[in-house]
Amino acid sequence: MITDREKAAFEAGIKLGALYHQFVGTPIARETAAAVEAAIEQAVGLQPYVTGITVRLNRDMMVSNRFGYSELAGKMFDAAITTEVGTAVCRARMRLEDDYPMMEIVEFHETTRDTDH
Amino acid sequence: MITDREKAAFEAGIKLGALYHQFVGTPIARETAAAVEAAIEQAVGLQPYVTGITVRLNRDMMVSNRFGYSELAGKMFDAAITTEVGTAVCRARMRLEDDYPMMEIVEFHETTRDTDH
Amino acid sequence: MITDREKAAFEAGIKLGALYHQFVGTPIARETAAAVEAAIEQAVGLQPYVTGITVRLNRDMMVSNRFGYSELAGKMFDAAITTEVGTAVCRARMRLEDDYPMMEIVEFHETTRDTDH
Amino acid sequence: MITDREKAAFEAGIKLGALYHQFVGTPIARETAAAVEAAIEQAVGLQPYVTGITVRLNRDMMVSNRFGYSELAGKMFDAAITTEVGTAVCRARMRLEDDYPMMEIVEFHETTRDTDH
Repeated sequence: MITDREKAAFEAGIKLGALYHQFVGTPIARETAAAVEAAIEQAVGLQPYVTGITVRLNRDMMVSNRFGYSELAGKMFDAAITTEVGTAVCRARMRLEDDYPMMEIVEFHETTRDTDH
Repeated sequence: MITDREKAAFEAGIKLGALYHQFVGTPIARETAAAVEAAIEQAVGLQPYVTGITVRLNRDMMVSNRFGYSELAGKMFDAAITTEVGTAVCRARMRLEDDYPMMEIVEFHETTRDTDH
Repeated sequence: MITDREKAAFEAGIKLGALYHQFVGTPIARETAAAVEAAIEQAVGLQPYVTGITVRLNRDMMVSNRFGYSELAGKMFDAAITTEVGTAVCRARMRLEDDYPMMEIVEFHETTRDTDH
Repeated sequence: MITDREKAAFEAGIKLGALYHQFVGTPIARETAAAVEAAIEQAVGLQPYVTGITVRLNRDMMVSNRFGYSELAGKMFDAAITTEVGTAVCRARMRLEDDYPMMEIVEFHETTRDTDH
């Protein structure tokens, strides 16, 4: 028996792992960060079981190299994701914690709406 | 309250999402598939809470383009991962199902060994 | 002796190879394609020696999987890039040719403006 | 008119840009670096016009995070590539220079063997 909460946690993990490894390495700067955030949010929003996604990239860490730009690093991510399976809602996040881009489940709750498909 | 099973499911999801999006797009052919499998397995094996990982890439799908090689696609993956948090063990997999690279929890069980750290 | 044209060609190649392998695998659909195009163009526009970049993703190829989205594939790219080194301007592109995402130099010309830095 | 040297330089650039953005972000440690080097070399070796490729990843930079591993960063690369178009041979490299993973053409020479195809 696998619960809806366990499935929702699994799905949240998939999306955080995916977005990290898809976009790390992207050339970035403060003036282009918003476009990259939008692209990530829209990409993740298409994936199954996702009902909410916000991505903020830490501009303070976007220090220019000799050519005037930086590169998207895991440590820049502050992401919050919500997944729903059946009536279980899982909120999870990725954010810098002791210099590591930590991914964690924040909490679960129930919804009356059934979104499993 | 978040259970160890939920955390183990979350961690398994992270690793499957990560390996998919890290390696999709890699130039590949039947004669180089083993090296890519080894690199993926070794990379995932480093990540927290992973106690088992096997990756098989479907050689039959590695059809040569005009330059004699192919490209790693999500549909080629057959991956099995085991994660452990506390005494909870989660086995999950990714494999082609109705033309979609499906990621799923297979089962949970308990271990007497405590691996949370 | 390495000419400015050769350097400009090398730089154009770097950017096309980079954008392909950075973004292939991104979840995508017709309604999110514009955001991904914008993110790619802005990312590439930051890189050294780039003076022009346009990226169009072929919406016709964005066929929905069972979860209602698609994935960015190399074959969807139609990209045009301009690089400048010294007085040499290189125009190059990537586009589908006989089912292969072909990258090619289109032409060189001279500019009176010196952009080497 | 586009020369074989210009084409060979373009092809070398493609491969360096590609390998960088394909593999940056891969979980890595000193004991797995050889497997990742082998996978990268074999992947690049499949691509058109490549006649030589060596990739060395700087183990000294693989500092462990709290979970005991590191992540492949652009600064770790020391790569040398040879491409051939017609009778033109281009040698290029990527290596750390003033804290930037610099890609550069090293030199051109002629071969009597015609490898254009």
